[in-house]
Amino acid sequence: MTSHAPDEPIGVAVIGAGYWGPNLVRNFQGSPAFHLRWLCDLDVDRARKVLGGYSTVGVSADLDEVLADPGVHAVAIATPAGSHLPVALAALRAGKHVLVEKPLAATFEEGRQLVDEADRRGLTLMCDHTYCYTPAVLRIRDLLAAGELGELHFLDSVRINLGLVQRDIDVVWDLAPHDLSILDFVLPPAVRPIAVAAHGADGIGAGRACVAYLTLQLSNGAIAHIHVNWLSPVKVRTAIFGGSKRTLVWDDLNPSQRLSIYDRGVDVASPEELGDEQRRDILVSYRSGDMVAPALTEREALRTMVEEYARAITTGTPALTDGRSGLRVLELLQAASRSLAEGGTMIKLSEGHTA
Amino acid sequence: MTSHAPDEPIGVAVIGAGYWGPNLVRNFQGSPAFHLRWLCDLDVDRARKVLGGYSTVGVSADLDEVLADPGVHAVAIATPAGSHLPVALAALRAGKHVLVEKPLAATFEEGRQLVDEADRRGLTLMCDHTYCYTPAVLRIRDLLAAGELGELHFLDSVRINLGLVQRDIDVVWDLAPHDLSILDFVLPPAVRPIAVAAHGADGIGAGRACVAYLTLQLSNGAIAHIHVNWLSPVKVRTAIFGGSKRTLVWDDLNPSQRLSIYDRGVDVASPEELGDEQRRDILVSYRSGDMVAPALTEREALRTMVEEYARAITTGTPALTDGRSGLRVLELLQAASRSLAEGGTMIKLSEGHTA
Amino acid sequence: MTSHAPDEPIGVAVIGAGYWGPNLVRNFQGSPAFHLRWLCDLDVDRARKVLGGYSTVGVSADLDEVLADPGVHAVAIATPAGSHLPVALAALRAGKHVLVEKPLAATFEEGRQLVDEADRRGLTLMCDHTYCYTPAVLRIRDLLAAGELGELHFLDSVRINLGLVQRDIDVVWDLAPHDLSILDFVLPPAVRPIAVAAHGADGIGAGRACVAYLTLQLSNGAIAHIHVNWLSPVKVRTAIFGGSKRTLVWDDLNPSQRLSIYDRGVDVASPEELGDEQRRDILVSYRSGDMVAPALTEREALRTMVEEYARAITTGTPALTDGRSGLRVLELLQAASRSLAEGGTMIKLSEGHTA
Amino acid sequence: MTSHAPDEPIGVAVIGAGYWGPNLVRNFQGSPAFHLRWLCDLDVDRARKVLGGYSTVGVSADLDEVLADPGVHAVAIATPAGSHLPVALAALRAGKHVLVEKPLAATFEEGRQLVDEADRRGLTLMCDHTYCYTPAVLRIRDLLAAGELGELHFLDSVRINLGLVQRDIDVVWDLAPHDLSILDFVLPPAVRPIAVAAHGADGIGAGRACVAYLTLQLSNGAIAHIHVNWLSPVKVRTAIFGGSKRTLVWDDLNPSQRLSIYDRGVDVASPEELGDEQRRDILVSYRSGDMVAPALTEREALRTMVEEYARAITTGTPALTDGRSGLRVLELLQAASRSLAEGGTMIKLSEGHTA
Repeated sequence: MTSHAPDEPIGVAVIGAGYWGPNLVRNFQGSPAFHLRWLCDLDVDRARKVLGGYSTVGVSADLDEVLADPGVHAVAIATPAGSHLPVALAALRAGKHVLVEKPLAATFEEGRQLVDEADRRGLTLMCDHTYCYTPAVLRIRDLLAAGELGELHFLDSVRINLGLVQRDIDVVWDLAPHDLSILDFVLPPAVRPIAVAAHGADGIGAGRACVAYLTLQLSNGAIAHIHVNWLSPVKVRTAIFGGSKRTLVWDDLNPSQRLSIYDRGVDVASPEELGDEQRRDILVSYRSGDMVAPALTEREALRTMVEEYARAITTGTPALTDGRSGLRVLELLQAASRSLAEGGTMIKLSEGHTA
Repeated sequence: MTSHAPDEPIGVAVIGAGYWGPNLVRNFQGSPAFHLRWLCDLDVDRARKVLGGYSTVGVSADLDEVLADPGVHAVAIATPAGSHLPVALAALRAGKHVLVEKPLAATFEEGRQLVDEADRRGLTLMCDHTYCYTPAVLRIRDLLAAGELGELHFLDSVRINLGLVQRDIDVVWDLAPHDLSILDFVLPPAVRPIAVAAHGADGIGAGRACVAYLTLQLSNGAIAHIHVNWLSPVKVRTAIFGGSKRTLVWDDLNPSQRLSIYDRGVDVASPEELGDEQRRDILVSYRSGDMVAPALTEREALRTMVEEYARAITTGTPALTDGRSGLRVLELLQAASRSLAEGGTMIKLSEGHTA
Repeated sequence: MTSHAPDEPIGVAVIGAGYWGPNLVRNFQGSPAFHLRWLCDLDVDRARKVLGGYSTVGVSADLDEVLADPGVHAVAIATPAGSHLPVALAALRAGKHVLVEKPLAATFEEGRQLVDEADRRGLTLMCDHTYCYTPAVLRIRDLLAAGELGELHFLDSVRINLGLVQRDIDVVWDLAPHDLSILDFVLPPAVRPIAVAAHGADGIGAGRACVAYLTLQLSNGAIAHIHVNWLSPVKVRTAIFGGSKRTLVWDDLNPSQRLSIYDRGVDVASPEELGDEQRRDILVSYRSGDMVAPALTEREALRTMVEEYARAITTGTPALTDGRSGLRVLELLQAASRSLAEGGTMIKLSEGHTA
Repeated sequence: MTSHAPDEPIGVAVIGAGYWGPNLVRNFQGSPAFHLRWLCDLDVDRARKVLGGYSTVGVSADLDEVLADPGVHAVAIATPAGSHLPVALAALRAGKHVLVEKPLAATFEEGRQLVDEADRRGLTLMCDHTYCYTPAVLRIRDLLAAGELGELHFLDSVRINLGLVQRDIDVVWDLAPHDLSILDFVLPPAVRPIAVAAHGADGIGAGRACVAYLTLQLSNGAIAHIHVNWLSPVKVRTAIFGGSKRTLVWDDLNPSQRLSIYDRGVDVASPEELGDEQRRDILVSYRSGDMVAPALTEREALRTMVEEYARAITTGTPALTDGRSGLRVLELLQAASRSLAEGGTMIKLSEGHTA
């Protein structure tokens, strides 16, 4: 892989000044590893507004102009998913490293083209799976890797709140990439999704699912379940990782206690072995072991993500959330969409996924 | 139907002194409409312990003795589901009104026999769907009936905590009767479940599902989803009723705010119509309308249930949760079990259910 | 002290069938150490209603009749505070052990008479400081005694909700006995309150304080603060015990996490020593150490309290919450009342208290 | 007062690049009403770091240079409180409008000099009482003004979390300005604080109070109480406004339900009027009326504050949180400090405050 001289900042351009672009602009500006040269958007007024009236960063509506700048070594693409393929391909062909907002592309096939192109050229291709870089998810990954939870038995993820009903994608493609990329990120290599089913409803006549439930079979027999919902007046972002030794609860909306790790609280006991009193005690006991809430540093995930992009570029090694992880998420999304269309059929994933 | 003279207390016997029986004993004793004559259990020591050392209530290990007592007009059965059929049949054949702990019976066919027998004899057959008698569920039923939520779009119910892994039944049969009976109770008559799919996992090698997800298609196109789980260290009992006009959130573990009713918070807007600023404002706005949390009286559900039993017996009219509602729940449970066994197939319900 | 033969149940009578009496009745009935012989109330219909229609326990409106029963070895008094002195004195003079609902008496002087009388006769005098027998408070006491929190720096207790405005006492006498008895119970012997100030308000023209704040100086320089309030629509029952090593938070309304123990989270650092980045990091870090929530058994406090009463009677040793603890609470209440009347003056406590 | 031509942006300089300065920089840059010309700090490296590497805003270590710039019409001072007087005086004497971070000055006397100087010169003097510009506090102010809560009976404010122990000021001067400025802002003009008492403790040997409680008497007989604490591992930012008609609870850490308005929930009833059953029902009823949680827009308070600064400058009318409000807060802080030093004496406020 092409690597970058570590002693000078990486020239970078952000493509897309819509919802996500401003966050990338802010974090690239805040990172000493990068020098932000351009914000590129077809709507230059929008781009100027994002930068504000005090900025020395260049604005352009012309992607070619940006890609022709030899000071630009890397781009970050925050345009709608439908344009990821042409924009990213152009950047790769111009020899630029590429970071793409999730999902990697509009289809698995398109994502595959990007991965192949980056491979061929020895360039970094990274997917901005932002949640993977939160202190909470990084810790969950470490805990699972270290065996602190034991074998994973079930994962239950809920990501619901009032969301803008999107014109072009359903709630699965809008929200589930977060959960699926987290799943892909934290699972030990030996445990992989092997099939997925999805059920959904279009409550409000939006023309696409606004509420959806995904069920994934994992290769170790565990189950993972994801609830995504645009119509919930209460916001919930909780995931439970049930393990053979401990169970972890991640509540992302509780900044003072995002992670709670419970000693395993249930044993298989035959009721015959128990007296009445015991039986009741077990039933009313809320949990049988202590709980530990580890201290986490509060750090913006995008800042860590941007640093990982720099690391990948500089060292020429794959990013933690590289193009292949984006591809695995796309395969899951496509299988979920097919299941949704077929009324909930369990769809097997390709060997490529489990390999 | 046979009715009871309203001017004297109804003689009642509780059958079963296990987990649930003591609650029935306490509430029958507290109700002026009933006179508790017997607590019947094969284990008379257990029965005596439940009554305590200061009680004048009779104890017996012999069901026949209890049923032969002409002062007993009604029984309440809190034995394991497998014995509901013989015990309830014996009681009905002895001319007694019957209340049965959920589920009504071990199978739909057995439940059908009970309903038929009660019909034939003009006796009250009631299922103790306790949650239906909570102030919260009674209010939800009223709100839906009055159209306060508009058309129901989705229902999401979560009932998870550390539970005793049962020897004879899985988590679906243990916990989902609560959610299914509530659904049956609150849905307007025109909206009925038409199909059900279930996915589950036996995380801990218990030999039966300890985590399960049920997805129900409703006749109006809405979706209902139920998460039941014995392995969760955190206890959650929340249901969201998403309607076309308002959305209701029921959090049964928040006694000071069990019900929250939100003005509908999302509209179908094309992003093109929105400026950037607006688009972001919508996305970050947690909800666009006020919320009302109605005051609820705190009243034990079993007390209301017992009164409804008395009302049904006295007036000879069906109880709110009569045998037929118990039967509908059994059909849903059986269909869910079949789906679980078949890996999540969507199982159509009989016409009988939807009729 | 007179002790009781441990091999037979202690005959007990409950005096007072009002708000608290039924709880005592239920717990004495449930305890094998006691045999409940009487429920005594001037209003025998009320007493009969409390016992229900199935009880063999005697009912009487005549205290003398009850005290004349040689089978009664002990009484439990749950009458209004104003009658504690005559009722308890009569019982002690009849040679009965005495348990009194909090507060021990209407005044410190009256309480002193009871303690002296019980001492003279070698009888058990115990105060029903119920909260001290909750699993949470027992654990807090152990943690403080074991030095797990280090030196206590501050205690902040909040006990607020909508309460019935009492006719005869203010919110301090109604609610603060809970907090003051807990404080008395958990503090290490070397740390004692030495002064108290109180501020309050009668928001609604009730004729007495409905909102009050108590500030206690402790002998080690620490501060304890209590907020009691009848007018709060939200119910809060939280106490923070800030120690030199760890800080403990008790949230009694969170059954799944009543106790949270935080590693001490703040150090005295001069801002000059810190860079800007550090300074901000410290400020935004919610806590710098892990938190542990110990598993607690769920057990009714009154059950443990009743067992402690039996233990004290049987062994002839003082109960954990004996008459002297009731007396110390009375001294604090009287000092708080005096401060309230004087507009918040800090009132020194007697040497007797600190001795 | 001098007013500003409304058709051109107001040239502004931020003085101080420490903790708060960057927030002001960001919000002035985001406001079309202002043109940010300078960030001034003795440590120019720190100032450059705040602006980042892409900014056209000027940096200076020389206040005189900044004040000599005729393009600067206004300054915003975010230096330590001890330097507010000289910096603000210099700015006013240079004819600049002045915004000062809270507290207005290090002492009441210094604050008084600033108010007089601004008055003399007809310049805007505004205090950055940021919380007053949150959507929640603005709404509370409106509700109180409209009489929606009725007469205010009590206010209870809790602002506790782990905070950096300050070198130069105690927890009262660090945190209570927030609560006192909110109180000053939302109270109807006819209701004013007339006296204040304070108790505190220096748990950790920091040399100044780290935990403090303020009690304020209001002119209508109501009580206001403030708990500020640097040592609490749990973060709480809650205020209860108890009124004669309704009670409002503000929980600033609950973004989905910051405000909850409860119908008044308690009446003065003599227990004699109530049957036992009623008495208990009232006691266990968590609240007797409905609760409404009004929808609030999510808007950064500083953005609104900056707009108010522009409005005040442009119209020549006092800002909502003008110098006089800063002065009233200073008087309360000084009285609290005196009370703290005197062990909790109730300190009367000057007529000037209540006038």
